Amino acid sequence: MALTLYELGGLNDRRYSLYSWRARYALAHKGLTPEYRPVRVSDKAAFAFSKQDKVPILVDGDDTIHDSFRIAQHLETKYPDKPLFGGEIGQSLSRFMNSWVDRTIVPRLVPLFIIDLLGIVDEGDGAHMRRNIEKAFGKTLEELAANREKDVAAIRRLFDPVRASLRSQPFICGSQPAYADYIVFSPLQWARIVAPVDVLEPGDALAAWRERMLDLYAGLGRTTPARA
Amino acid sequence: MALTLYELGGLNDRRYSLYSWRARYALAHKGLTPEYRPVRVSDKAAFAFSKQDKVPILVDGDDTIHDSFRIAQHLETKYPDKPLFGGEIGQSLSRFMNSWVDRTIVPRLVPLFIIDLLGIVDEGDGAHMRRNIEKAFGKTLEELAANREKDVAAIRRLFDPVRASLRSQPFICGSQPAYADYIVFSPLQWARIVAPVDVLEPGDALAAWRERMLDLYAGLGRTTPARA
Repeated sequence: MALTLYELGGLNDRRYSLYSWRARYALAHKGLTPEYRPVRVSDKAAFAFSKQDKVPILVDGDDTIHDSFRIAQHLETKYPDKPLFGGEIGQSLSRFMNSWVDRTIVPRLVPLFIIDLLGIVDEGDGAHMRRNIEKAFGKTLEELAANREKDVAAIRRLFDPVRASLRSQPFICGSQPAYADYIVFSPLQWARIVAPVDVLEPGDALAAWRERMLDLYAGLGRTTPARA
Repeated sequence: MALTLYELGGLNDRRYSLYSWRARYALAHKGLTPEYRPVRVSDKAAFAFSKQDKVPILVDGDDTIHDSFRIAQHLETKYPDKPLFGGEIGQSLSRFMNSWVDRTIVPRLVPLFIIDLLGIVDEGDGAHMRRNIEKAFGKTLEELAANREKDVAAIRRLFDPVRASLRSQPFICGSQPAYADYIVFSPLQWARIVAPVDVLEPGDALAAWRERMLDLYAGLGRTTPARA
């Protein structure tokens, strides 16, 4: 069955969307290899076929699914081997992780580095992003980035409950990675691709886990290079 | 097999320990009814038999287990029916929830109301708690409580990722409660028993979920009355 993942693409074929990285890892976890279709964030016509305006979008035969969590649910149902969630409790707590990362980490981390993202997307996408982010936050991208060294230090501490898990096991989900690992990895992967600095400190257990995550699936995470 | 749970007890037989409430719900979830043994927090001799100085302690035949998460793991292994975790991913993500609640919610909520806890424990326990908490935080209990209306409003917002889960399902763990529900419930149950105000607002979906949690197991959570 043909699988196609529509996802944001930047200059030099960089794939920077954090939600797309969740879908990429979920597909790899299931042993599935999709065709990747990069789209520009400002080119809504390219994915109008999905009848909504967000990527990533997975086309799996007759099914068209958007929203990274729904893509993971679709994969878990259709390809039950190699569980991403491992049952109802695991799926529910993965949903909690999804909300925690998307409400606690992403809105604090991403605005700090949009100004750098402009350097790796085309001009039209850059103007689109500047407009949208500045409107959403009521600040210029320059203002959002102004104190980011201090902001990044505070964000690092938000991951403390994750570090607690990694003290007794190699992955957040246990002895093997699963979907909640991919959720937590995604903003760090975004920062790796976009930010001119490493947002983690050397010696941080989270940085060691991130390396393990980058090694998975024949180095899938390294197919887009680090910026720093 | 005889089961005994050693837990903190206050005046008029109030059971206020949040970690003990996790163990109480985990036992009830498994259909197990322990004998409850209240101990005073300042009376370490009462649980010296466990060779450590923390409660709750579960004695299950020849096994003596302390630490609420280890008690849950013990129950899940020994009594596998009616899963608390539902497999390795669920257990790992429950551990993450445990760390998130214990690092994000508990250390912000509990200090605000220790001054009220003194009213429902005996004098020796009260003096012990005042000494320990004031030393740990470098502030008097009165100072810790000084701005608590504002502090409680900020703590309420920390639960937003939980509210996101409850929009699509009745319990954090899905259609039925499981251990992560008991973890999140525990500081709210502590506040219900100790605080002279309801820390949640009427109409909050989290308050409706708390009612469902209090209803479980023939109203187990209501066996110690609300303070407010």
